[in-house]
Amino acid sequence: MTVQVGIIMGSKSDWPTMQHAAEMLDSLGVAYEVKVVSAHRTPDLLFDYAKTAQARGLKVLIAGAGGAAHLPGMAASQTSLPVLGVPVKSRALNGLDSLLSIVQMPGGIAVGTLAIGDAGAKNAGLLAAQILATSDHELLKRVDAFRAQQTETILSEPDPRDVF
Amino acid sequence: MTVQVGIIMGSKSDWPTMQHAAEMLDSLGVAYEVKVVSAHRTPDLLFDYAKTAQARGLKVLIAGAGGAAHLPGMAASQTSLPVLGVPVKSRALNGLDSLLSIVQMPGGIAVGTLAIGDAGAKNAGLLAAQILATSDHELLKRVDAFRAQQTETILSEPDPRDVF
Amino acid sequence: MTVQVGIIMGSKSDWPTMQHAAEMLDSLGVAYEVKVVSAHRTPDLLFDYAKTAQARGLKVLIAGAGGAAHLPGMAASQTSLPVLGVPVKSRALNGLDSLLSIVQMPGGIAVGTLAIGDAGAKNAGLLAAQILATSDHELLKRVDAFRAQQTETILSEPDPRDVF
Amino acid sequence: MTVQVGIIMGSKSDWPTMQHAAEMLDSLGVAYEVKVVSAHRTPDLLFDYAKTAQARGLKVLIAGAGGAAHLPGMAASQTSLPVLGVPVKSRALNGLDSLLSIVQMPGGIAVGTLAIGDAGAKNAGLLAAQILATSDHELLKRVDAFRAQQTETILSEPDPRDVF
Amino acid sequence: MTVQVGIIMGSKSDWPTMQHAAEMLDSLGVAYEVKVVSAHRTPDLLFDYAKTAQARGLKVLIAGAGGAAHLPGMAASQTSLPVLGVPVKSRALNGLDSLLSIVQMPGGIAVGTLAIGDAGAKNAGLLAAQILATSDHELLKRVDAFRAQQTETILSEPDPRDVF
Amino acid sequence: MTVQVGIIMGSKSDWPTMQHAAEMLDSLGVAYEVKVVSAHRTPDLLFDYAKTAQARGLKVLIAGAGGAAHLPGMAASQTSLPVLGVPVKSRALNGLDSLLSIVQMPGGIAVGTLAIGDAGAKNAGLLAAQILATSDHELLKRVDAFRAQQTETILSEPDPRDVF
Amino acid sequence: MTVQVGIIMGSKSDWPTMQHAAEMLDSLGVAYEVKVVSAHRTPDLLFDYAKTAQARGLKVLIAGAGGAAHLPGMAASQTSLPVLGVPVKSRALNGLDSLLSIVQMPGGIAVGTLAIGDAGAKNAGLLAAQILATSDHELLKRVDAFRAQQTETILSEPDPRDVF
Amino acid sequence: MTVQVGIIMGSKSDWPTMQHAAEMLDSLGVAYEVKVVSAHRTPDLLFDYAKTAQARGLKVLIAGAGGAAHLPGMAASQTSLPVLGVPVKSRALNGLDSLLSIVQMPGGIAVGTLAIGDAGAKNAGLLAAQILATSDHELLKRVDAFRAQQTETILSEPDPRDVF
Repeated sequence: MTVQVGIIMGSKSDWPTMQHAAEMLDSLGVAYEVKVVSAHRTPDLLFDYAKTAQARGLKVLIAGAGGAAHLPGMAASQTSLPVLGVPVKSRALNGLDSLLSIVQMPGGIAVGTLAIGDAGAKNAGLLAAQILATSDHELLKRVDAFRAQQTETILSEPDPRDVF
Repeated sequence: MTVQVGIIMGSKSDWPTMQHAAEMLDSLGVAYEVKVVSAHRTPDLLFDYAKTAQARGLKVLIAGAGGAAHLPGMAASQTSLPVLGVPVKSRALNGLDSLLSIVQMPGGIAVGTLAIGDAGAKNAGLLAAQILATSDHELLKRVDAFRAQQTETILSEPDPRDVF
Repeated sequence: MTVQVGIIMGSKSDWPTMQHAAEMLDSLGVAYEVKVVSAHRTPDLLFDYAKTAQARGLKVLIAGAGGAAHLPGMAASQTSLPVLGVPVKSRALNGLDSLLSIVQMPGGIAVGTLAIGDAGAKNAGLLAAQILATSDHELLKRVDAFRAQQTETILSEPDPRDVF
Repeated sequence: MTVQVGIIMGSKSDWPTMQHAAEMLDSLGVAYEVKVVSAHRTPDLLFDYAKTAQARGLKVLIAGAGGAAHLPGMAASQTSLPVLGVPVKSRALNGLDSLLSIVQMPGGIAVGTLAIGDAGAKNAGLLAAQILATSDHELLKRVDAFRAQQTETILSEPDPRDVF
Repeated sequence: MTVQVGIIMGSKSDWPTMQHAAEMLDSLGVAYEVKVVSAHRTPDLLFDYAKTAQARGLKVLIAGAGGAAHLPGMAASQTSLPVLGVPVKSRALNGLDSLLSIVQMPGGIAVGTLAIGDAGAKNAGLLAAQILATSDHELLKRVDAFRAQQTETILSEPDPRDVF
Repeated sequence: MTVQVGIIMGSKSDWPTMQHAAEMLDSLGVAYEVKVVSAHRTPDLLFDYAKTAQARGLKVLIAGAGGAAHLPGMAASQTSLPVLGVPVKSRALNGLDSLLSIVQMPGGIAVGTLAIGDAGAKNAGLLAAQILATSDHELLKRVDAFRAQQTETILSEPDPRDVF
Repeated sequence: MTVQVGIIMGSKSDWPTMQHAAEMLDSLGVAYEVKVVSAHRTPDLLFDYAKTAQARGLKVLIAGAGGAAHLPGMAASQTSLPVLGVPVKSRALNGLDSLLSIVQMPGGIAVGTLAIGDAGAKNAGLLAAQILATSDHELLKRVDAFRAQQTETILSEPDPRDVF
Repeated sequence: MTVQVGIIMGSKSDWPTMQHAAEMLDSLGVAYEVKVVSAHRTPDLLFDYAKTAQARGLKVLIAGAGGAAHLPGMAASQTSLPVLGVPVKSRALNGLDSLLSIVQMPGGIAVGTLAIGDAGAKNAGLLAAQILATSDHELLKRVDAFRAQQTETILSEPDPRDVF
């Protein structure tokens, strides 16, 4: 299976968040690679990674980072591939800094930003699959099946009063 | 030229913002349609629009809204197409409410969120084109050209001290 | 006893918050129903629920949700019944996102919003009862009694220095 | 026509905001009264007003205030009528202070809070009418008609590109 | 010793915060009384308390409350005594709501606001003593002694590297 | 008339705000002095001013500043007189920075903080008078008269619908 | 005079802010260069610029940017020279996004951040000079003279009541 | 080894944060001193410390404080040495108050501000070393080596999937 999505993160401590992107891609049958790339501490690696991503066959990048989160935006500065950004929850400001650092990009370089934390990472995986599915009918069917299943799960949930 | 992108907005007063998405798509040669669809005031229209978008040939939706901005998320709830959200600047809270209402989606339904206001709308157009370009080599070349041109513009800028 | 209030929530994980609405209605002798309905994951169910609420005899809806909380506003888009919104505390932003997503509705579709979390859910139950009490004199007496009792409890509280 | 709604505000400078509540009630055929009552500068008047509201035949109170907005909550402390709060936009903090001062009520005394500013005032009028309509079938029909008209207006809107 | 300061709080759960005001007054030899008075749940008691405070010999009021904290402002509305407000840390918003609800008073009714939480309560006790000391030379000497002692404590602190 | 209140501010550009404190003191017949003293640019002057304030007969200090507003807290560090702080509206953050810089003092040094901007300055003047009135019966009567007049003004206000 | 400071900014529209850094350096007799370098639109130029800065004789970099402001942090990732960051006021969020994007750097790559807007740019120039002055006694004397002059200006200011 | 950096903090409770500055300086071979100096509780000590810092041979000051954090700015008011500020995480507002109190300095007195908490303290040590390195070639080599080592650490990190 060709690797189509690159998941990068600024620090290995971001993996507990970013693994939700990986799990979603796994469940949808999308191949991906995972790499720790720090915008600030390995800037040249980041530029190499982003510049060569398309030539290596990647179709979408998912970048997660916290605090002054520059990874998604700087990756986007070096590739025309769609870049999705995941704000990782930060220690002091709970990810509000991460969110603003990722989403408030200037006109001309875009990052599609997801929610802070685990839900955002999961949705980054999902949105990456939806993007690939615009030209992959089999994948689209799997995305549709995931969504139908998700709806079904809620519809069949017992009364919450019986659970707690 | 087949219409591939749907631009929707909660109110016609959002158009001065959202037109920047349209202009970007125009400049990249991507055909799109424009429609005022209010999540709150025309919910059935929104559901019809989003449910039929894929069958009508659309590949990406761009949704802009302000305040308690439910349009992007609710569109995403009804289609597997990638949905991009643009937080329109609101009167009291300057779009912080719009941003949080769009980006903080729960896991399972994704909206790729752009910056508040004009820059976000412009980038929604650009990101939509980048998404389409993952399977359209001619469009990819136009995106690359746009970016090269953009870089060139800055490189050739005069010393700011000569301008102001 | 006729069911007059519908309590809905975006996820069963909202129940520990929303049960405070149920408890308040119990204590005031107001019959209600409880249902998990997700604006994003079961949008059609939500529309069915809200569209038929009035015909099924409901008088007030209470909707709780967290993050990009679209449930109260979208319920309000489909019914003329009064809708009360409860912002559930979210993981990263402590419910500020939930609050703004619920309260900042555009003119024309209203949601009466309560405080973030348990106190808000309790007050949603209370306000629902107050609404019903505008045309139910017996209920009004029970509301008045609850309030008198609440006042009494504080008036008879010992000196806090004796308690801690 | 019996006066059923009381609109109060902390200062006459709140009227340009609060008049949107009045206009909505006018358009729905609901009779109301208007009064400047300051929680801080005329506290005894406020208590008299709120304590006697029910006996005078009022069914719903709408209270608007800005900054450390205590008017809605203090009115609610003195009546079992439903109280709706409108955060008026404040000079320094744009109404965020007004919003939090109104919505974050402790459990036991409820204020149904609307959006900051004009839209919130308009919706306070609408929600008051929806509350009254739970026991007034003729009013319910007028509310439904208003909503249908509102939906129609958007459905018949021209393409925004033709307007701007 | 005449009671000169009244410490009131909206709920007995505020006592762990407000006791820091009491302790400061104890250490400075200022007599005070303590009472739970809720602006929302015992509004009439609050008005009685504040209206009679001066006649009963009180010179300063200290009021602590959380969330939509109306206690300090409403006490100030009923007395010409100086009122000091302590924002108690709230569950969802960490006291930012309490702070804004207390400090953003309109022109004409003043509340001298201290920091959120324990430090604010301690300083409310200190500021109350400083106010009384403007006309009580013996108390002023005790305040000065407290401050000199406080300075001395820091000056004699060991190198932090030896402590941790 | 003995000068009892010192009004200081970090920059002469704060005067349009701080003059509201002066006007209030004028109207209540309290003598005061006015001085520009910058915590950052004239720190030694500030220390001299605060250290000698009591000996020069002052009873209360009012300090206004914007941004990283250190003036009130640093004045308080050098005197046992009550210090009232006025957060001046700042250019970028509208005075939220000023407010937090003034109000969030550590335990042991207190600043009684008023609202951001003009209303806060006015109330600083009022609170200073209330403090002085704890030992000045004539002044207390003037404060009471001011408040009665203020209440009267609102009570006699025409219906806002007649004004706008 | 050797150029010792490089002033870079993300867009020529940042110049009205950043010129205050230049003016401060001018007044202190420090030579500098000015360049528009966009982290997002000219990332390679930024890397070249920062990588070669030290070899070209620069001692300090000043970088100004707005929104998702990545310029200062990315410059710092490519040089061991001290980098000072100036958050430029942004359209929607008034520079709060710029501030958090610049200041919240992860451990290991530092940016010394100044205030939002003009004052921050002025202080960036001043701090750059102070840094250079740690090894340039003549410059230190000019810095000291500037500060003495600044103090003098305030000390000799007329009573603000005479000015407005 | 001559002491070149002074690390000061408002309270010994700040040491667990500020020790990260000390550790960084240790690892880079820069000598420093550590002292608890409170702007509010030992203002005269602070002034003495800052006024004599340069004469005692210090080249850079690092000041950490929380809440209404006045220490860095007041130190800067008394010396022409570069002052770096570290916002210590505060109890209620997580350091947002500390950050704004430190960074929003008025034009004319500069504080180079780092991130909230441990990362900020670490970077204050690093930036102090970078400042000293502008005139100390041996130190520059150590800074460069630290950064190269830091980059190497990330480059050689295993796949995060193998770690968690």
